[in-house]
Amino acid sequence: MTVTFREAQRADVPAVIALLVDDGLGASREAGDMDIYLRAFDVIQSGGGNTVIVGERDGRIVATYQITIIAGLSLRASTRAQLESVRVASDLRGQGIGHLLIADAEARARGAGCSLMQLTMNHSRKDTARFYASLGFTPSHIGYKRELM
Amino acid sequence: MTVTFREAQRADVPAVIALLVDDGLGASREAGDMDIYLRAFDVIQSGGGNTVIVGERDGRIVATYQITIIAGLSLRASTRAQLESVRVASDLRGQGIGHLLIADAEARARGAGCSLMQLTMNHSRKDTARFYASLGFTPSHIGYKRELM
Repeated sequence: MTVTFREAQRADVPAVIALLVDDGLGASREAGDMDIYLRAFDVIQSGGGNTVIVGERDGRIVATYQITIIAGLSLRASTRAQLESVRVASDLRGQGIGHLLIADAEARARGAGCSLMQLTMNHSRKDTARFYASLGFTPSHIGYKRELM
Repeated sequence: MTVTFREAQRADVPAVIALLVDDGLGASREAGDMDIYLRAFDVIQSGGGNTVIVGERDGRIVATYQITIIAGLSLRASTRAQLESVRVASDLRGQGIGHLLIADAEARARGAGCSLMQLTMNHSRKDTARFYASLGFTPSHIGYKRELM
């Protein structure tokens, strides 16, 4: 399986949003005009250390994730790579694309001098828990969220 | 109780590290020359949207946290405020400083246009779990970490 991971371009945003919608939780959470996503993509691009990645196979965007490099003081001044919005096309799951995706993230994290990768996963994603455990991630933390409305 | 929260300056870094060490988990995790922390502080300052905050009372740094503003595509292009390294001086806990700290973070998050605040907490911090629940945070996620050595 050959999947090429690269930084997303603005023209990839509709395909990325399609992957976010192609998901048990995302189906109900994503909505609205593509303009709100394009504006957010421009903000992501304008900042440093925050990047949307896409995985492409035979001209199709089949996977995506966001990686954010966060310098910090704790853990002996560790720099962390945080992953968000990790998705693989639903018709292509279980074929190793997720492993390639995490390997790509690890390479980018190491390249940015990170000593830690981290992400949070909604409790309802039972299958995904096995996936992250198999990749050496430790479920050591509770992930808290609070909406600001 | 009056605590003034403000952006940390370079001269505050030793006091911030003292708060990280003044902690059940941090005591064993933090070590090394102050230079590594000062260099990390300079990196934090050089990037956008990543800020160390200190809480000061009567000239003493009594609390700290890091806030990172992360633009994203998911959740209808939500911008998140992520909190990290939240600490209150051990001799001053239980007096409401933590609530003031989270209120300060919320104000900064809203000011940055965030629709979500998030953080992860090590499972071993049982008292802290009650604290976040009391502040309206939902423990909806599992926080995964993987060291890159």
